[in-house]
Amino acid sequence: MSRTIDWDGRDILIIDQTRLPHDERTVRLHRVEELAEAITRLRVRGAPALGVAGALGLALAIRRAQEAGQDIGSAVDAAAGTLAATRPTATNLAWGINQAREALSAGPEAVVQRAVQLLEADVAINRALAQRGADLLGERQADLGRSLRLLTHCNTGSLACVEWGTALGIIRAAHERGGVADVLVTETRPLLQGARLTTWELERLGIPYRVVVDGAAPALMQRGRVDAVVVGADRVAANGDVANKIGTFSLALAARQAAIPFIVAAPESTLDPATATGLDILIEERPEDEILSVNGHRVAPAGARALNPAFDVTPAGLVTAIVTERRVIRPALGEGVIG
Amino acid sequence: MSRTIDWDGRDILIIDQTRLPHDERTVRLHRVEELAEAITRLRVRGAPALGVAGALGLALAIRRAQEAGQDIGSAVDAAAGTLAATRPTATNLAWGINQAREALSAGPEAVVQRAVQLLEADVAINRALAQRGADLLGERQADLGRSLRLLTHCNTGSLACVEWGTALGIIRAAHERGGVADVLVTETRPLLQGARLTTWELERLGIPYRVVVDGAAPALMQRGRVDAVVVGADRVAANGDVANKIGTFSLALAARQAAIPFIVAAPESTLDPATATGLDILIEERPEDEILSVNGHRVAPAGARALNPAFDVTPAGLVTAIVTERRVIRPALGEGVIG
Repeated sequence: MSRTIDWDGRDILIIDQTRLPHDERTVRLHRVEELAEAITRLRVRGAPALGVAGALGLALAIRRAQEAGQDIGSAVDAAAGTLAATRPTATNLAWGINQAREALSAGPEAVVQRAVQLLEADVAINRALAQRGADLLGERQADLGRSLRLLTHCNTGSLACVEWGTALGIIRAAHERGGVADVLVTETRPLLQGARLTTWELERLGIPYRVVVDGAAPALMQRGRVDAVVVGADRVAANGDVANKIGTFSLALAARQAAIPFIVAAPESTLDPATATGLDILIEERPEDEILSVNGHRVAPAGARALNPAFDVTPAGLVTAIVTERRVIRPALGEGVIG
Repeated sequence: MSRTIDWDGRDILIIDQTRLPHDERTVRLHRVEELAEAITRLRVRGAPALGVAGALGLALAIRRAQEAGQDIGSAVDAAAGTLAATRPTATNLAWGINQAREALSAGPEAVVQRAVQLLEADVAINRALAQRGADLLGERQADLGRSLRLLTHCNTGSLACVEWGTALGIIRAAHERGGVADVLVTETRPLLQGARLTTWELERLGIPYRVVVDGAAPALMQRGRVDAVVVGADRVAANGDVANKIGTFSLALAARQAAIPFIVAAPESTLDPATATGLDILIEERPEDEILSVNGHRVAPAGARALNPAFDVTPAGLVTAIVTERRVIRPALGEGVIG
């Protein structure tokens, strides 16, 4: 599998995720506006991938400004503004933009270099996070005396990152250790990232799985069908509140009810100590038509309206563990992200 | 709006709900096998409508046996077996079949007459239930000092009954009293009865609403967007455990977390004192393709598998009130359905 997002020195290359699972197509992004469109339309998505995309977006702006003989500083400012506005909840996007931008004082090539560093670092970060998470699942496996039946939400695999994955990366690492019996994959409405993307990755990895509708997951936990829930994050507040794909809160409530560990995979770049609690997190509202139509076919009657929040906030008290590339935080025991 | 299910003395007439909201088409069912197919494919659905369908199915079998000069008793037995097997979780279906069958000792016309009585009674029962439920919502409205923002799941309106509706019937009655600000409608995957059918009814009734994905409802409750949840039931056990459309349990957990009343509308015919608790309720598993394909378009990759339980069980402790046509039961306070 090629990288989800990559840089060839001149342009950004992405796998267009809106075409998966039926069509695996790499798209070349030449202009910042093309990248912004790709982010808005979720052709590239996932917290870690968005961090890298933000940084590479500034590299892209620099290359185009150089070719056109335009002012580099203005081009970087404009690109930063355009890109940051595309997905307001995802903290990694702003983080990646800022990381690259801070290098501008050392010249344009330093920005490009920083972006490429973030690209390469993402792979190593994910692998370290995945091993740490697999250790945690290993403890659960030892407690139960058998391999685990896991549940995950949305897509947090290699497609959400440069390579490997966060929550799905943990599952992949646990599978390589022989610790995974099977995985329940929530389809993840409205855009079906679970049914389209996570399934596609699990097929390739040879990990047994079943797709379930989002509303079925709590009942399946209640019926003893799940040993642990493993999800990603789009932003973690200082107190350990977790903003993630809509539907995550519901899974956390059900996990607590069923006394199942609720594990969040989040690179350190997703932690946002500047945001005190989940109440301070802006929740992106996406277009109504994502719900009212499916595959371009209108399902609701004419005149119907929808509310389409893209994320929800899971209170820290429901989060058993946040696994990063360098530590395990226990929000349910009162641990915050600082320290 | 014509009746969802009706009898012309010879055949059953139904609105084919798989074609809504875009195409309102009445279908004539002449043979028991056609009715069984219509139930299996959810052309006719909803606990009260299934009760009436079960009873009318025996009337249909009798008419065909009379025309062909066949044995009435055998025809009724065969029809009862065929129809009862179509939806194992829905208690009303078996109830309707049994109600009509018991009349056979008084002759075939008594069966037809009983079925027609159930058809007519359903309307009156729903209206009584709706007024009682609207009284309950009126108390909530008085507490809050404003009209209510409600949330409902699946379709429990006139399309789930002969006319009027159960949970959506309560909302309709509350709306007629001026008590409803707006309604959040869960789309209800996999078959989208909320997005397709409840929206269609609310449009016609002029009640303001928004569609949300199933996974968004708990977060919207958490954010203070909902004053009460009102849902239907497919079977209520003696202790007050409620089997209903998959996703209901998740809503009940979120309602408790947000301290919102969780109200279940169920005609007395949906109460099943012979089933001790929810653990004894058989959960219908439906075809995987209902999840893996949407509108005939495959969303998951080749080889993907799904788990598709049609119902879940909400424990009595999460149920604020069960409203029937003649009483309000309080399972969360320890009240069961007998008494």
